[in-house]
Amino acid sequence: MRLKFLWPGKTRSPEIKGLQEFYASRIGALAPVEIVETREARGIDERQAGRIKELEAGGLEKHLEGVYIICLTDEGATMTSREFSDFLRGRADGAGKPLAFVVGGFLGLADRILERADLRLSLSRMTFSHELSRVVLLEQVYRALTIIRGRHYAK
Amino acid sequence: MRLKFLWPGKTRSPEIKGLQEFYASRIGALAPVEIVETREARGIDERQAGRIKELEAGGLEKHLEGVYIICLTDEGATMTSREFSDFLRGRADGAGKPLAFVVGGFLGLADRILERADLRLSLSRMTFSHELSRVVLLEQVYRALTIIRGRHYAK
Repeated sequence: MRLKFLWPGKTRSPEIKGLQEFYASRIGALAPVEIVETREARGIDERQAGRIKELEAGGLEKHLEGVYIICLTDEGATMTSREFSDFLRGRADGAGKPLAFVVGGFLGLADRILERADLRLSLSRMTFSHELSRVVLLEQVYRALTIIRGRHYAK
Repeated sequence: MRLKFLWPGKTRSPEIKGLQEFYASRIGALAPVEIVETREARGIDERQAGRIKELEAGGLEKHLEGVYIICLTDEGATMTSREFSDFLRGRADGAGKPLAFVVGGFLGLADRILERADLRLSLSRMTFSHELSRVVLLEQVYRALTIIRGRHYAK
Protein backbone atom coordinates (compact mmCIF):
# COMPACT_ATOMS: atom_id res chain seq x y z
CA MET A 1 0.00 0.00 0.00
CA ARG A 2 1.62 3.22 -1.18
CA LEU A 3 0.74 6.32 0.79
CA LYS A 4 0.94 9.97 -0.20
CA PHE A 5 0.25 12.97 1.98
CA LEU A 6 -0.46 16.25 0.24
CA TRP A 7 -0.86 19.72 1.69
CA PRO A 8 -0.09 23.25 0.62
CA GLY A 9 3.06 24.76 2.09
CA LYS A 10 5.76 23.65 4.45
CA THR A 11 4.95 23.04 8.10
CA ARG A 12 6.07 26.17 9.95
CA SER A 13 5.99 25.08 13.59
CA PRO A 14 9.34 23.37 14.21
CA GLU A 15 7.75 21.09 16.81
CA ILE A 16 4.97 20.01 14.46
CA LYS A 17 7.52 19.56 11.68
CA GLY A 18 9.54 17.34 14.02
CA LEU A 19 6.50 15.21 14.87
CA GLN A 20 5.57 15.02 11.19
CA GLU A 21 9.02 13.62 10.41
CA PHE A 22 8.84 11.26 13.37
CA TYR A 23 5.56 9.67 12.29
CA ALA A 24 6.47 9.72 8.59
CA SER A 25 9.60 7.77 9.39
CA ARG A 26 7.64 5.24 11.47
CA ILE A 27 5.11 4.86 8.66
CA GLY A 28 7.99 4.51 6.21
CA ALA A 29 9.19 1.42 8.05
CA LEU A 30 5.80 -0.22 7.33
CA ALA A 31 4.78 1.12 3.91
CA PRO A 32 6.18 3.32 1.12
CA VAL A 33 5.27 6.89 1.99
CA GLU A 34 5.75 10.31 0.44
CA ILE A 35 4.87 13.75 1.80
CA VAL A 36 4.33 16.39 -0.87
CA GLU A 37 4.16 20.00 0.26
CA THR A 38 2.45 21.71 -2.68
CA ARG A 39 2.28 25.33 -3.72
CA GLU A 40 1.01 27.62 -1.02
CA ALA A 41 -0.85 30.88 -1.71
CA ARG A 42 1.18 33.59 -0.01
CA GLY A 43 0.83 37.33 0.32
CA ILE A 44 -2.86 37.32 -0.52
CA ASP A 45 -5.31 39.03 1.80
CA GLU A 46 -7.07 36.40 3.86
CA ARG A 47 -10.46 37.84 2.92
CA GLN A 48 -9.85 36.54 -0.58
CA ALA A 49 -10.46 33.02 0.66
CA GLY A 50 -11.78 31.77 -2.67
CA ARG A 51 -8.69 32.93 -4.53
CA ILE A 52 -6.36 31.38 -1.96
CA LYS A 53 -8.12 28.03 -2.05
CA GLU A 54 -8.22 28.12 -5.85
CA LEU A 55 -4.47 28.72 -6.13
CA GLU A 56 -3.73 25.95 -3.66
CA ALA A 57 -6.11 23.60 -5.49
CA GLY A 58 -3.95 24.09 -8.59
CA GLY A 59 -0.91 22.83 -6.72
CA LEU A 60 -2.70 19.85 -5.21
CA GLU A 61 -4.32 18.77 -8.48
CA LYS A 62 -0.98 17.93 -10.05
CA HIS A 63 -0.74 14.99 -7.67
CA LEU A 64 -4.26 13.57 -7.87
CA GLU A 65 -4.14 11.45 -11.02
CA GLY A 66 -4.41 7.69 -10.54
CA VAL A 67 -4.70 7.80 -6.77
CA TYR A 68 -7.48 7.07 -4.32
CA ILE A 69 -8.22 10.52 -2.87
CA ILE A 70 -9.00 10.99 0.81
CA CYS A 71 -9.80 14.61 1.66
CA LEU A 72 -9.72 15.74 5.26
CA THR A 73 -12.62 18.00 6.08
CA ASP A 74 -14.72 18.83 9.13
CA GLU A 75 -17.75 17.59 7.18
CA GLY A 76 -16.22 14.18 6.53
CA ALA A 77 -17.01 10.82 8.09
CA THR A 78 -15.66 10.17 11.56
CA MET A 79 -14.21 6.75 12.36
CA THR A 80 -12.69 5.01 15.31
CA SER A 81 -9.01 4.06 14.95
CA ARG A 82 -10.12 0.46 14.47
CA GLU A 83 -12.60 1.40 11.71
CA PHE A 84 -9.91 3.48 10.05
CA SER A 85 -7.46 0.58 10.09
CA ASP A 86 -10.17 -1.71 8.65
CA PHE A 87 -10.72 0.83 5.89
CA LEU A 88 -6.97 0.96 5.12
CA ARG A 89 -6.72 -2.82 5.13
CA GLY A 90 -9.61 -2.95 2.66
CA ARG A 91 -7.85 -0.53 0.34
CA ALA A 92 -4.59 -2.47 0.58
CA ASP A 93 -6.40 -5.60 -0.55
CA GLY A 94 -8.00 -3.76 -3.46
CA ALA A 95 -6.80 -2.68 -6.89
CA GLY A 96 -3.75 -1.16 -5.31
CA LYS A 97 -4.09 2.49 -6.27
CA PRO A 98 -1.90 4.59 -4.01
CA LEU A 99 -3.81 6.42 -1.30
CA ALA A 100 -3.48 10.19 -1.28
CA PHE A 101 -4.46 12.00 1.90
CA VAL A 102 -5.16 15.65 1.17
CA VAL A 103 -5.16 18.25 3.97
CA GLY A 104 -6.13 21.84 3.21
CA GLY A 105 -4.30 24.99 4.22
CA PHE A 106 -5.57 27.25 6.98
CA LEU A 107 -8.69 28.07 4.95
CA GLY A 108 -9.43 24.48 4.02
CA LEU A 109 -9.83 22.83 0.61
CA ALA A 110 -11.45 24.25 -2.53
CA ASP A 111 -14.77 22.67 -3.47
CA ARG A 112 -13.32 21.26 -6.66
CA ILE A 113 -10.79 19.24 -4.65
CA LEU A 114 -13.45 18.07 -2.20
CA GLU A 115 -15.62 17.00 -5.14
CA ARG A 116 -12.86 14.70 -6.40
CA ALA A 117 -12.57 12.90 -3.06
CA ASP A 118 -13.19 9.15 -3.00
CA LEU A 119 -13.56 9.54 0.76
CA ARG A 120 -14.11 12.58 2.95
CA LEU A 121 -12.66 11.99 6.36
CA SER A 122 -12.89 13.98 9.57
CA LEU A 123 -10.34 13.36 12.32
CA SER A 124 -12.69 14.72 14.93
CA ARG A 125 -15.89 16.71 15.30
CA MET A 126 -13.54 19.33 16.73
CA THR A 127 -11.62 21.58 14.37
CA PHE A 128 -7.86 21.27 14.67
CA SER A 129 -5.35 23.79 13.31
CA HIS A 130 -4.29 22.75 9.83
CA GLU A 131 -0.73 22.04 10.98
CA LEU A 132 -1.87 19.98 13.96
CA SER A 133 -4.19 18.03 11.61
CA ARG A 134 -1.13 16.91 9.66
CA VAL A 135 0.37 15.31 12.75
CA VAL A 136 -2.86 13.78 14.01
CA LEU A 137 -3.46 12.26 10.58
CA LEU A 138 0.06 10.81 10.39
CA GLU A 139 -0.28 9.41 13.89
CA GLN A 140 -3.59 7.75 12.96
CA VAL A 141 -2.16 6.23 9.80
CA TYR A 142 0.80 4.92 11.77
CA ARG A 143 -1.57 3.54 14.42
CA ALA A 144 -3.72 1.92 11.72
CA LEU A 145 -0.70 0.24 10.14
CA THR A 146 0.41 -1.15 13.50
CA ILE A 147 -3.12 -2.50 14.05
CA ILE A 148 -3.04 -4.12 10.59
CA ARG A 149 0.37 -5.66 11.26
CA GLY A 150 -0.70 -6.75 14.71
CA ARG A 151 2.09 -4.76 16.32
CA HIS A 152 1.95 -3.28 19.72
CA TYR A 153 1.50 0.48 19.80
CA ALA A 154 0.64 2.12 23.09
CA LYS A 155 -2.34 4.36 23.63
CA MET B 1 -12.17 30.80 34.78
CA ARG B 2 -9.25 28.94 36.35
CA LEU B 3 -7.98 25.96 34.39
CA LYS B 4 -5.97 22.98 35.56
CA PHE B 5 -4.57 20.20 33.45
CA LEU B 6 -3.60 16.99 35.20
CA TRP B 7 -1.83 13.94 33.86
CA PRO B 8 0.58 11.36 35.21
CA GLY B 9 4.20 11.89 34.28
CA LYS B 10 6.18 14.42 32.33
CA THR B 11 5.74 14.65 28.59
CA ARG B 12 8.65 12.75 27.07
CA SER B 13 8.57 13.77 23.42
CA PRO B 14 10.49 17.06 23.24
CA GLU B 15 8.32 18.24 20.33
CA ILE B 16 5.08 17.49 22.18
CA LYS B 17 6.51 19.12 25.28
CA GLY B 18 7.31 22.21 23.19
CA LEU B 19 3.78 22.35 21.79
CA GLN B 20 2.35 21.83 25.27
CA GLU B 21 4.29 24.86 26.50
CA PHE B 22 3.31 26.87 23.43
CA TYR B 23 -0.42 26.34 23.93
CA ALA B 24 -0.22 26.64 27.73
CA SER B 25 1.41 30.01 27.31
CA ARG B 26 -1.27 31.15 24.85
CA ILE B 27 -3.99 29.94 27.23
CA GLY B 28 -2.18 31.69 30.08
CA ALA B 29 -2.61 35.01 28.29
CA LEU B 30 -6.40 34.51 28.41
CA ALA B 31 -7.03 32.66 31.69
CA PRO B 32 -5.11 31.46 34.76
CA VAL B 33 -3.76 28.03 33.92
CA GLU B 34 -1.74 25.37 35.68
CA ILE B 35 -0.37 22.08 34.37
CA VAL B 36 0.23 19.44 37.04
CA GLU B 37 2.23 16.38 36.07
CA THR B 38 1.32 13.90 38.77
CA ARG B 39 2.99 10.73 39.95
CA GLU B 40 3.61 8.25 37.19
CA ALA B 41 3.77 4.49 37.73
CA ARG B 42 7.18 3.39 36.50
CA GLY B 43 9.00 0.12 36.30
CA ILE B 44 5.83 -1.96 36.55
CA ASP B 45 5.10 -4.61 33.95
CA GLU B 46 2.52 -3.26 31.52
CA ARG B 47 0.39 -6.38 31.98
CA GLN B 48 -0.36 -5.13 35.47
CA ALA B 49 -2.59 -2.46 34.00
CA GLY B 50 -4.87 -2.30 37.01
CA ARG B 51 -2.00 -1.66 39.40
CA ILE B 52 -0.51 1.03 37.16
CA LYS B 53 -3.82 2.86 36.81
CA GLU B 54 -4.43 2.54 40.55
CA LEU B 55 -1.07 4.07 41.44
CA GLU B 56 -1.59 6.92 38.99
CA ALA B 57 -5.11 7.49 40.33
CA GLY B 58 -3.55 8.12 43.75
CA GLY B 59 -1.45 10.93 42.29
CA LEU B 60 -4.32 12.50 40.40
CA GLU B 61 -6.74 12.36 43.33
CA LYS B 62 -4.70 14.81 45.36
CA HIS B 63 -5.76 17.53 42.93
CA LEU B 64 -9.45 16.77 42.51
CA GLU B 65 -11.00 18.46 45.55
CA GLY B 66 -13.21 21.47 44.85
CA VAL B 67 -12.81 21.40 41.09
CA TYR B 68 -15.12 20.59 38.21
CA ILE B 69 -13.62 17.38 36.82
CA ILE B 70 -13.43 16.73 33.09
CA CYS B 71 -11.97 13.32 32.30
CA LEU B 72 -10.73 12.59 28.82
CA THR B 73 -11.75 9.15 27.65
CA ASP B 74 -12.57 7.45 24.35
CA GLU B 75 -16.03 6.73 25.75
CA GLY B 76 -16.75 10.38 26.48
CA ALA B 77 -19.00 12.83 24.67
CA THR B 78 -17.71 14.27 21.41
CA MET B 79 -18.27 17.96 20.70
CA THR B 80 -17.51 20.38 17.94
CA SER B 81 -15.08 23.17 18.82
CA ARG B 82 -18.03 25.56 18.95
CA GLU B 83 -19.98 23.29 21.34
CA PHE B 84 -16.89 22.93 23.49
CA SER B 85 -16.46 26.71 23.69
CA ASP B 86 -20.16 27.07 24.58
CA PHE B 87 -19.63 24.53 27.34
CA LEU B 88 -16.61 26.42 28.69
CA ARG B 89 -18.47 29.72 28.53
CA GLY B 90 -21.30 28.15 30.53
CA ARG B 91 -18.88 26.97 33.19
CA ALA B 92 -17.20 30.38 33.35
CA ASP B 93 -20.59 31.95 34.09
CA GLY B 94 -21.32 29.39 36.77
CA ALA B 95 -20.29 28.98 40.39
CA GLY B 96 -16.70 29.46 39.40
CA LYS B 97 -15.15 26.18 40.47
CA PRO B 98 -11.84 25.74 38.66
CA LEU B 99 -11.99 23.30 35.77
CA ALA B 100 -9.65 20.33 35.97
CA PHE B 101 -8.98 18.43 32.76
CA VAL B 102 -7.66 14.95 33.52
CA VAL B 103 -5.80 12.92 30.89
CA GLY B 104 -4.76 9.35 31.65
CA GLY B 105 -1.37 7.78 31.09
CA PHE B 106 -0.76 5.32 28.27
CA LEU B 107 -3.17 2.83 29.84
CA GLY B 108 -5.90 5.39 30.47
CA LEU B 109 -7.65 6.38 33.70
CA ALA B 110 -8.68 4.15 36.61
CA ASP B 111 -12.42 3.62 36.96
CA ARG B 112 -12.50 5.45 40.26
CA ILE B 113 -11.21 8.61 38.58
CA LEU B 114 -13.68 8.25 35.70
CA GLU B 115 -16.49 7.81 38.23
CA ARG B 116 -15.68 11.18 39.78
CA ALA B 117 -15.92 13.01 36.45
CA ASP B 118 -18.48 15.78 36.12
CA LEU B 119 -17.99 15.43 32.38
CA ARG B 120 -16.43 12.70 30.28
CA LEU B 121 -15.04 14.16 27.11
CA SER B 122 -13.65 12.52 23.99
CA LEU B 123 -11.46 14.56 21.63
CA SER B 124 -12.28 12.25 18.76
CA ARG B 125 -13.76 8.86 18.00
CA MET B 126 -10.18 8.01 17.07
CA THR B 127 -7.71 7.08 19.79
CA PHE B 128 -4.73 9.41 20.07
CA SER B 129 -1.51 8.62 21.89
CA HIS B 130 -1.74 9.91 25.45
CA GLU B 131 0.96 12.50 24.84
CA LEU B 132 -0.64 13.75 21.62
CA SER B 133 -3.96 13.98 23.49
CA ARG B 134 -2.37 16.51 25.84
CA VAL B 135 -1.53 18.81 22.96
CA VAL B 136 -4.83 18.38 21.14
CA LEU B 137 -6.68 19.16 24.37
CA LEU B 138 -4.61 22.29 25.03
CA GLU B 139 -5.13 23.44 21.45
CA GLN B 140 -8.90 22.96 21.78
CA VAL B 141 -9.04 24.86 25.06
CA TYR B 142 -7.02 27.67 23.50
CA ARG B 143 -9.32 27.65 20.47
CA ALA B 144 -12.40 27.70 22.72
CA LEU B 145 -11.08 30.69 24.67
CA THR B 146 -10.41 32.61 21.45
CA ILE B 147 -13.97 31.83 20.31
CA ILE B 148 -15.33 33.06 23.67
CA ARG B 149 -13.24 36.24 23.46
CA GLY B 150 -14.19 36.73 19.82
CA ARG B 151 -10.57 36.67 18.76
CA HIS B 152 -9.33 35.55 15.44
CA TYR B 153 -7.63 32.17 15.45
CA ALA B 154 -6.94 30.46 12.17
CA LYS B 155 -8.15 26.99 11.31
